Amino acid sequence: MSSFEKIQAAAKRLQGHARVTPILSSPFLDEIAGRRVLVKAECLQHTGSFKFRGGWAAVSALSDAERKKGVIAYSSGNHAQGVAAAAKAHGVQAVILMPADAPQLKIANTRALGAEVVLYDRAGGENRDAIGHQLAADRGLILIKPYDEPEVIAGQGTTGLEIAKQAAADGVTQADVLVCCGGGGLTSGVALALEGVAPGLRVRPVEPEGFDDVARSLQSGEIQSNAEISGSICDAILTPAPGQLTFPVLKRLCGPGIVVSEDEALRAMALAFLRLKIVVEPGGAVALAAALFHPEEFKGQAVIALATGGNVYAALYQQALLRYA
Amino acid sequence: MSSFEKIQAAAKRLQGHARVTPILSSPFLDEIAGRRVLVKAECLQHTGSFKFRGGWAAVSALSDAERKKGVIAYSSGNHAQGVAAAAKAHGVQAVILMPADAPQLKIANTRALGAEVVLYDRAGGENRDAIGHQLAADRGLILIKPYDEPEVIAGQGTTGLEIAKQAAADGVTQADVLVCCGGGGLTSGVALALEGVAPGLRVRPVEPEGFDDVARSLQSGEIQSNAEISGSICDAILTPAPGQLTFPVLKRLCGPGIVVSEDEALRAMALAFLRLKIVVEPGGAVALAAALFHPEEFKGQAVIALATGGNVYAALYQQALLRYA
Repeated sequence: MSSFEKIQAAAKRLQGHARVTPILSSPFLDEIAGRRVLVKAECLQHTGSFKFRGGWAAVSALSDAERKKGVIAYSSGNHAQGVAAAAKAHGVQAVILMPADAPQLKIANTRALGAEVVLYDRAGGENRDAIGHQLAADRGLILIKPYDEPEVIAGQGTTGLEIAKQAAADGVTQADVLVCCGGGGLTSGVALALEGVAPGLRVRPVEPEGFDDVARSLQSGEIQSNAEISGSICDAILTPAPGQLTFPVLKRLCGPGIVVSEDEALRAMALAFLRLKIVVEPGGAVALAAALFHPEEFKGQAVIALATGGNVYAALYQQALLRYA
Repeated sequence: MSSFEKIQAAAKRLQGHARVTPILSSPFLDEIAGRRVLVKAECLQHTGSFKFRGGWAAVSALSDAERKKGVIAYSSGNHAQGVAAAAKAHGVQAVILMPADAPQLKIANTRALGAEVVLYDRAGGENRDAIGHQLAADRGLILIKPYDEPEVIAGQGTTGLEIAKQAAADGVTQADVLVCCGGGGLTSGVALALEGVAPGLRVRPVEPEGFDDVARSLQSGEIQSNAEISGSICDAILTPAPGQLTFPVLKRLCGPGIVVSEDEALRAMALAFLRLKIVVEPGGAVALAAALFHPEEFKGQAVIALATGGNVYAALYQQALLRYA
């Protein structure tokens, strides 16, 4: 099965389970950006982020024997909740390995969704891949990696199928599609989907300053790493480096990466509050920030931005409103 | 043309212009309510509230000769923005009469949408009907009333057509539908739509304490007024009394009214932030508040609540988060 066929198959399994999230827009945002801005509001997805799609795709692809074993995932929070919710709906046990400095809200939500949460010390250098593999081996669990995993990429890619259809209905068939990018699961999935159904839509990965591994990797043609993997408010998209599976796709299909500041992300959050009435977390707002504040990066009459998640704690959200709303 | 046929006709004129807003839900909210809670996120409508539907329906129903005259509307803010945006899209001049104590955000947005804003003193007892009619007469403008207006009721009623379809897709055909209620335009429109397409769905008007004219009117069988028409954070739904056109519909089709406190509205706003990732204003949150905090009012496995608007200023929103998120 090709990657595109995998996305189509995942879309069938997700039907009636994942939400078809709306495309939103506002003349006030169009004016700031100098062109139409279509925002795919994936923060309205179950569990508050697109990660539910990948979680559902991966869990629903397991054999009965595998489901009986249970699953394990490592995640700063959104993949955790996506896998936990999907596992619960399938009656599958879930263990989630989360960094101890992940937002408390994401940890609490993951537990409330029925998963067993195991914490590790991200800042102290503990390696989640190693811990995750060890736990999986010790307890006989199936590991669902956050991005370097074909079924997860396929699940996230279903977002791209919807974007193609919705953008066409809005009259947009030629545009850059800005995707908040961590390890590249969503970005590569959307790029593969658009390659199949909307070749006039080109993906551009967007990252926060200091965590621009994908932008640098695309520029150099080789996988580059981040110096740090914590310490940004954009916690959802802090990953060490693009994935082994995702990077070749990004390299083949995506335009240059775009880097935005944390302040730009906060401003985009405030504008999403004011103009779109959606709650977006910092890591989920970098694509909208690029659309609004980096107009020189784009050509044409429209740009599409994914608002990928809304799991932000209230105190940080209030800061964004206090400064920029 | 019957009221229901008017709604169907309005739905055709709105197609491709108004958004089909999603139904959202969260297991966390279901747990609080003790049943499934389906939230129709009409705060994601253009201009941030359902009022865009009525504005579009009314402006699009005008003859060419009427459009040339221009329109006037009076509104605390959401109807203002809805009419202003619809008028702008149709190339029609709009004058909007707004209370001077309306949220600055709503006044500013209305102006930014190209309308001329005229302020009046609501708290001081100036009568907006009288001023509106006078201005309309003096300047030859077509008056679009906020709720006692057949085309506006029809436009708001299109929300009910969507609810019926979306709820059925979610397996819900028997439930109370909670509607944030001011003058009753949306409430009566939705009730008329559901009467036509989903008779198992019954509308219940929801109001804030101190402004429960509809609940008291339904109880007594006669139109009752509010002692005050300002002084609540639920500014969007403060009206003097149910309308002459809307009340007979409410009386015929709706279940008993429900009254919630301002604090409950703020808690519902915070929960919509945490669990649904939508921004809801106080007046737009009273229906969700009823669903969550007045479970004794309902029977059955599900309840449907309209989140009718999201035009809340940041400082008030921050208060809701500070207290309850």
